[in-house]
Amino acid sequence: MGASLEELAAAIGVQGAKVKELKTAKADAGAIKEAVDALLALKKELTALDPSHALAIVDKKAKKKGGGDAPKGGGGGAQKPSKKELRMAERAKKAEAGAAAPKADASASADVFGEVPTIMSTELSNKVWTPVSAVTYEAVGTTVLVRARLHTVRAKGNLAFLVLRQGCFTVQAVAAAGGDAGVPKAMIAFVGKIPSESIVDVEAVVAAADVASCSQSDVELAVKSVFVVSKSLPDLPFQIVDASRNENEPKDGEVVVGLDTRLNHRVIDLRTPANQAIMRVRAAVPLLFASYLDANGFVGTNSPKLLAGASEGGSSVFKLDYFGRDCCLAQSPQLYKQMLSACADFERIYEIGPVFRAEDSNTRRHLCEFTGLDFEMAIYEHYYEILHVFSELFAHIFSSLESKFAKELGIISQVYPFEPFKFLPKALRISFAEGIELLRAAGVTEEMQGSFDDLSTENEKTLGDIVKAKYGTDFFIMDKYPLSIRPFYTMPDPETYGKVPPAQQLSNSFDMFMRGQEIVSGAQRVHDHALLMERVNFCHSGGGHGGPAPEDIKGYTDAFKYGAFPHGGGGVGLERVVMLYLGLTNIRKVSCFPRDPTRLTP
Amino acid sequence: MGASLEELAAAIGVQGAKVKELKTAKADAGAIKEAVDALLALKKELTALDPSHALAIVDKKAKKKGGGDAPKGGGGGAQKPSKKELRMAERAKKAEAGAAAPKADASASADVFGEVPTIMSTELSNKVWTPVSAVTYEAVGTTVLVRARLHTVRAKGNLAFLVLRQGCFTVQAVAAAGGDAGVPKAMIAFVGKIPSESIVDVEAVVAAADVASCSQSDVELAVKSVFVVSKSLPDLPFQIVDASRNENEPKDGEVVVGLDTRLNHRVIDLRTPANQAIMRVRAAVPLLFASYLDANGFVGTNSPKLLAGASEGGSSVFKLDYFGRDCCLAQSPQLYKQMLSACADFERIYEIGPVFRAEDSNTRRHLCEFTGLDFEMAIYEHYYEILHVFSELFAHIFSSLESKFAKELGIISQVYPFEPFKFLPKALRISFAEGIELLRAAGVTEEMQGSFDDLSTENEKTLGDIVKAKYGTDFFIMDKYPLSIRPFYTMPDPETYGKVPPAQQLSNSFDMFMRGQEIVSGAQRVHDHALLMERVNFCHSGGGHGGPAPEDIKGYTDAFKYGAFPHGGGGVGLERVVMLYLGLTNIRKVSCFPRDPTRLTP
Repeated sequence: MGASLEELAAAIGVQGAKVKELKTAKADAGAIKEAVDALLALKKELTALDPSHALAIVDKKAKKKGGGDAPKGGGGGAQKPSKKELRMAERAKKAEAGAAAPKADASASADVFGEVPTIMSTELSNKVWTPVSAVTYEAVGTTVLVRARLHTVRAKGNLAFLVLRQGCFTVQAVAAAGGDAGVPKAMIAFVGKIPSESIVDVEAVVAAADVASCSQSDVELAVKSVFVVSKSLPDLPFQIVDASRNENEPKDGEVVVGLDTRLNHRVIDLRTPANQAIMRVRAAVPLLFASYLDANGFVGTNSPKLLAGASEGGSSVFKLDYFGRDCCLAQSPQLYKQMLSACADFERIYEIGPVFRAEDSNTRRHLCEFTGLDFEMAIYEHYYEILHVFSELFAHIFSSLESKFAKELGIISQVYPFEPFKFLPKALRISFAEGIELLRAAGVTEEMQGSFDDLSTENEKTLGDIVKAKYGTDFFIMDKYPLSIRPFYTMPDPETYGKVPPAQQLSNSFDMFMRGQEIVSGAQRVHDHALLMERVNFCHSGGGHGGPAPEDIKGYTDAFKYGAFPHGGGGVGLERVVMLYLGLTNIRKVSCFPRDPTRLTP
Repeated sequence: MGASLEELAAAIGVQGAKVKELKTAKADAGAIKEAVDALLALKKELTALDPSHALAIVDKKAKKKGGGDAPKGGGGGAQKPSKKELRMAERAKKAEAGAAAPKADASASADVFGEVPTIMSTELSNKVWTPVSAVTYEAVGTTVLVRARLHTVRAKGNLAFLVLRQGCFTVQAVAAAGGDAGVPKAMIAFVGKIPSESIVDVEAVVAAADVASCSQSDVELAVKSVFVVSKSLPDLPFQIVDASRNENEPKDGEVVVGLDTRLNHRVIDLRTPANQAIMRVRAAVPLLFASYLDANGFVGTNSPKLLAGASEGGSSVFKLDYFGRDCCLAQSPQLYKQMLSACADFERIYEIGPVFRAEDSNTRRHLCEFTGLDFEMAIYEHYYEILHVFSELFAHIFSSLESKFAKELGIISQVYPFEPFKFLPKALRISFAEGIELLRAAGVTEEMQGSFDDLSTENEKTLGDIVKAKYGTDFFIMDKYPLSIRPFYTMPDPETYGKVPPAQQLSNSFDMFMRGQEIVSGAQRVHDHALLMERVNFCHSGGGHGGPAPEDIKGYTDAFKYGAFPHGGGGVGLERVVMLYLGLTNIRKVSCFPRDPTRLTP
């Protein structure tokens, strides 16, 4: 003879607590699995005795097939009723009982369903809401209160199936009318009419289940009450379920929601679990960046975005009126971060802030406003000191994303499948000349890519592929770029500067690449005032990369007259890093409210 | 008989390591003191045996008095030579020996002083530079290499006294010509001519000393070599020493550097230790803010700064041309953070970013560009949930500043003396009505401050004083402000809304104060679309606080049609928080490059 129901329920409680404890203590996977298996065995035993018990394992597929109808005998076959069917029968019986007791319904309805008045801070109870993400197998048997979106609802007969969604997570809830444990039948009708996307408070008992379509796939909620907190209009600009699928593989009849439609109604679009996950991954990067640099002696700064001149001499700046004076928006914190690091003695600084580019570039990888992650540091001898920081910083960021956001990465890859990002513990570095050689070996001729010209986007991607194949990394550094294609403040390479014709001179500069696209541009900068003026004048008079008029940046160049630390740094485009880490194909997907030449709203 | 010199030196080494270990392990103060005392006793014993030993205790005042001259017998008195005098005699003897050996000088000069060529990443040695902050008593006897500014230099005869400065920290270095341990006499002349503010590499042995005027007051550096890395012009716009003093108490003949002069040459001004410390304290706040909120489930976001309309209907916005379209700079992330939190399902979000205000306010507490620290969160029942987060967040920030920045706070208070900031573990909350009552009790009449009018700056300060006296806190929350003085998106108070005349209705809003000045404004917001439209229309038609035209914010209001979480939040002005925490009197002092109606540079 087996154990009694009560004994089993108690044993399940004890074993469930043990599983929770092991998980909390981050015990090793084997130990957790063993405990979970023991728990499942107990649950199976209990389920065999009483499939309708609150702690029983519920098979979702069966319920779906059955809907709210009475159970059908094994269809065309002659099998004996399965556990699923027994469970359905149990449910249907209870539902019928409920239907037969309308009076009980009416008296209960006010307490267990309805619309709550607009929440205006009238009460502060001791109620505790459980996040959908915490509705897990360990919570089976407990009563929880959840506030979430009504993702979908389907009511039929005495049953209503709800999917509740909160952020990245979904859970199924079942309201069954009738019987002792049942809800009033009127609630089924009420629930069935709640528009999707409304926000609801659901009180329910957590039960074991198998719901492959929900993130909380091993549980479901046995509904006790449902209240509408905020009602959605019934017709949305598009359906969340349509926007939540892998858009590259639509099945027959599936609606694909286009990018413009999504962005026009971005607040709705951002609700999809994949977008929720993308934005959470995105949010992690600046914090990882800042906390790593802070721990390494960097001081956080905020340089002004309102400038009296065009910061780097570019023409693609947004201009505005500043109390009657000409003003423009900063294209980068470049000159300020140098001044703070090298001239104002902070030595190691970082900045996270918006960067404004008035470039009329309508590509998949340009935004007119993006988030820049910049750092600048004093160096003692060599710009390799900067590369060392970058290498460690990115390894820290990549490995943290991998370990802390496994769940989010999984959710994203369901909709936007991508190859996991590969990187080496110490970043690979090749020189620009070596990069050109690799391209030559792959058949890219001098005509297709000049040895001293900036790489085209296409050649960068080709080089990324070559490097990936040869070194097994999606992330690498390329340094010693030709001087003529870098800004005036770039430190020339001492081996070639003044020794070969200007077009062949190199510089102490570097770019960094992820999946063959540039994400960082950086360099040692000129800290010597005389050399700086030489470079400013040369570039402004049409040499090299061009540059601003000396008089327009006098405040900057003068700062180097009073002693300056040798220094350098680089800037990272946040959205580009996240886009490439996730293998996304459009940078707009990683900006909550992207700005491009044609988009200024929402 | 005492121990030999060698034995003592070895014992000092062992004991020094022990001190270091205890400090690293953060042992209790008593244990550290005991070990330090033992170390000092050993050092005294060694000093008595050989005052010129590298590990001997050096008395700085004696050296200053003595300068480079030969020792003078006890002055008018008849005391026997003190240890200081013995040490000076030793130095002078060595200096004379050096002066007598000019040939050795010439041969050595190239190796121990000079100007290094511009550092262009030609070498990457194994040299290790020690930060000035790490030149401490524990390093006595070791040879260090320091890169720092030459704060001041004074050469006389065979001695040169240098003060080296790096960030917040200063250390004295002494170059003594002649003798075995001495430097070439030519170096003294060379060092004496290096302009202040030049950046130098100094190799030296750390010796015990007493230099009250330097941050590293118990050590000095016995110079072995000096190289100029980056030379300053000899004449600065103002002297760092003048800018480094308490400007409120100038002594006769001391130059006071005015705020405009400082800001016009901000890169120089920021070099003063107090400014270095202020900016380090400032840098800590956003990181404490972000990491605290991150740990509490808030998602970091960056809302656009380029907007198609005036975000809150205010007229004080900067306008610009966006590819031919009208555009303005965000005055706050208000509407976007609500949309992200309540409509786009992030529930808890924060943002750190620039805020642009085109207000023509020339006060000590307004900037046209400042750093906003914003958060917005879904609430379950009551806006007290928001106050709880704010209370915990600020307690975290204040206590972290206190514990982690004691050194910086000390440096700042030397120049800008301030009362330590007082706060309660759980923030005090009073209602607006209670605030008015407190003012009334202090003699502020209805005529001076209407019961439903916004507090004047003066009355806010008065209230701050009253609260400080009554509750002993510099930080408190005031809530339930009149509805008519808050923006249209503020949730009305359910007890008064629609029940009393509009001018007497209250709202679920709050401000927070530090030292009697507002630093946070926040509220529960309207999440119900119908109520929101009611408020938008009422305010736009001239009711209450005024507001934007419904059609200008349709994108925002429409977002609330599809279900929205009850929510609220607040915004913090970073510079104001730091200014008030430090008791500074001008907000420009906490912005690296402040922007006000008359200042757009540097």
